[in-house]
Amino acid sequence: MGTELFTVLPVTEARKQMAALLPPELRRREAVPILQSLGRRLAGALLGREDVPGFTRSTVDGYAVRAADTFGASDGAPTYFTVTGEVLMGARPERALGLGEAVRISTGGMLPPGADAVLMVEHTEAVGTEEIEAYRPVAPGENVICADEDIRTGAGVYPANHLLRPQDLGYLAAMGELELEVFAPLRVGIISTGDEIVPVNAKPAPGQVRDVNSYSLYAQVLLWGGEPVLFGVVGDDPALLSETLIRACEETDLVLVSGGSSVGARDHTAEIINRIKAPGLVFHGLAVKPGKPTLGGVVARKPVFGLPGHPAAALIAFDLMVAPLLKFGGYHQIQPGALPVRALVSRSLASAPGREEFFRVKLQCREGVLWADPVLGKSGLLKPMVEADGLIRVPLASEGIAAGVEVDVVLFGTDYDL
Amino acid sequence: MGTELFTVLPVTEARKQMAALLPPELRRREAVPILQSLGRRLAGALLGREDVPGFTRSTVDGYAVRAADTFGASDGAPTYFTVTGEVLMGARPERALGLGEAVRISTGGMLPPGADAVLMVEHTEAVGTEEIEAYRPVAPGENVICADEDIRTGAGVYPANHLLRPQDLGYLAAMGELELEVFAPLRVGIISTGDEIVPVNAKPAPGQVRDVNSYSLYAQVLLWGGEPVLFGVVGDDPALLSETLIRACEETDLVLVSGGSSVGARDHTAEIINRIKAPGLVFHGLAVKPGKPTLGGVVARKPVFGLPGHPAAALIAFDLMVAPLLKFGGYHQIQPGALPVRALVSRSLASAPGREEFFRVKLQCREGVLWADPVLGKSGLLKPMVEADGLIRVPLASEGIAAGVEVDVVLFGTDYDL
Repeated sequence: MGTELFTVLPVTEARKQMAALLPPELRRREAVPILQSLGRRLAGALLGREDVPGFTRSTVDGYAVRAADTFGASDGAPTYFTVTGEVLMGARPERALGLGEAVRISTGGMLPPGADAVLMVEHTEAVGTEEIEAYRPVAPGENVICADEDIRTGAGVYPANHLLRPQDLGYLAAMGELELEVFAPLRVGIISTGDEIVPVNAKPAPGQVRDVNSYSLYAQVLLWGGEPVLFGVVGDDPALLSETLIRACEETDLVLVSGGSSVGARDHTAEIINRIKAPGLVFHGLAVKPGKPTLGGVVARKPVFGLPGHPAAALIAFDLMVAPLLKFGGYHQIQPGALPVRALVSRSLASAPGREEFFRVKLQCREGVLWADPVLGKSGLLKPMVEADGLIRVPLASEGIAAGVEVDVVLFGTDYDL
Repeated sequence: MGTELFTVLPVTEARKQMAALLPPELRRREAVPILQSLGRRLAGALLGREDVPGFTRSTVDGYAVRAADTFGASDGAPTYFTVTGEVLMGARPERALGLGEAVRISTGGMLPPGADAVLMVEHTEAVGTEEIEAYRPVAPGENVICADEDIRTGAGVYPANHLLRPQDLGYLAAMGELELEVFAPLRVGIISTGDEIVPVNAKPAPGQVRDVNSYSLYAQVLLWGGEPVLFGVVGDDPALLSETLIRACEETDLVLVSGGSSVGARDHTAEIINRIKAPGLVFHGLAVKPGKPTLGGVVARKPVFGLPGHPAAALIAFDLMVAPLLKFGGYHQIQPGALPVRALVSRSLASAPGREEFFRVKLQCREGVLWADPVLGKSGLLKPMVEADGLIRVPLASEGIAAGVEVDVVLFGTDYDL
């Protein structure tokens, strides 16, 4: 069949070998306006371009004072201050504070020269219109933010590859960053194969089913920050598949070929990858269940993955092998399973040593305990993947997990209202 | 000041009162093509419109047989079958299976009439070209998916409000759904107030700072599935604020007014909401820290929230009060904190009874244990909100949390590679 070496690799090894072959040009940079940068990753480290807030400001409503003037103040023996004016928001107070003087200030106001702390209004009482009593002392710097306390010019703000969250957009706005250098999303070509697959708008004849993988993979690529490009359904026709694969490699950064579910179609994909260009096929089978019939290679400097035909297995193989590649470049909308959830597995699960095994589970909170209920079902069914909330992983060397054991559940991008 | 009732409410009560006043027209529906439906919510329950897969198909590569013919087969005493042909992928096999006959079939192939199970190829051996030996018996239905096993015509597939994930798009594609009725995202108007605030493209003079909240709230609205609309920065000018608020209420579904940080600006916002239209102000202060100076009301049938001027507090108030309203309508890209993470708090945190308190924490894995390290910092600083991964909540009646106690951490949409 042209694929002399039938190389089944563990996931980590397959990842490592694929990563080593990735061309650096996949890491394209682009400049985006700050309002379009949510969920993108910074292409380079970012340094402070000016001090923020840029002046000493109050964190409370009250009176700007010299801290030394408040020493010893208490309920029984208040200190008196002459109120000489008010700091206007957004204005620079010009007049310096004299001994025993106080100036009204709002949260965010700029401290006048000579002031080094702010008395909270709650700890004072007005005596007439131009005098206050202070009932507490304040230390120098109390209730004050210094000029470079948020950002210091030249200091590191973010490392390269930082994922931009809402609070980051605010922080960068404070520094006046209008445009950011981020990584460009990868374009991902998606090809569905199999003589039994018809497009979604067709009415399947007996023996035919609609194209599921194009749709779930399209969404999965979006979720992980890629730009999906559909290349449609190709029957088990080596010439047409070869032509479509070459076109997809030309037009996108990374190509996914899902199915066919038959042995023949898988072999075609492997053979085509090997024939088109060195280094060709990198692995042909993963030591994982589901996901065994996954293959990977490099065609014309583009990574190509053959994913299983079973939709649920295709999604797991995607998460294991494709998502890590998209993440660096991408938009990465939801973070499915980035941080696992701990739960107790509700029934024992047997697994064969020598391969990793993934079980679909549904999370259920019963009497305050979070349970991972295995969602079992035939591997070709769609329903179990829809009912499940996430996956638990049984490692390569393990023979399974006993009921009641605490496990990590790697979540899909599901909707939890537990 | 026109706001005679200074109503501080607990979060749950404020949510309940706001929810009761929401006009039903905020729940608009729209039809979207399936490829644009990721992360949207179904506007109505969805029933199966046809059986899926629609025919009995094999889940393995092997031989379609009558299960009864395999009974008693073993390694020592194999059963013999005559191979009468092969099921072509996507085709309907016409010829019925006779006694002792087998037909080659691939994963996903349609069972011929008379066959009720599939022998895995691994459990057989070819004897010449037209005969096989079977070494295991199969039960009726083994290695087979029935015609309505994934979806049954007329049966419930999803309830209304279901969030569409990648696997859901695949499932709906299998049923031939090309367009879905989903809820439309809410348009959210964002107004920044404060005499000290300048637009991001301006160079702040001493005493001025750039507009942070417009940017972090813009992103937060996107994150939760809304469509943000910026109305810019308005100084502490009641007439201009009133005019901008009315325009925002006309052009969007829900309005956020952040800041000003001064007491005067807050009172202006409250007064304007109360004056424009009944029911006006619903609550004026939340029993929560940070987030106390949050206010909410209804203007011209549109919910309006006054959020704190401090950016970190504004984001927390947003998560508590605004996010739950967006969720029903929205795109809901990331699910920040939908499912909390359990971690041990690394230092004791004191809290005053009578209000809820939120502490920012950074998650750190040390020697296999997940710790929530409090990120402390002055409330007006931006940096702590950027350094933190999420929040822990100290309930209304609690006096705090002791170091070493296990807590729930509600995550921001952060990047975890723990």
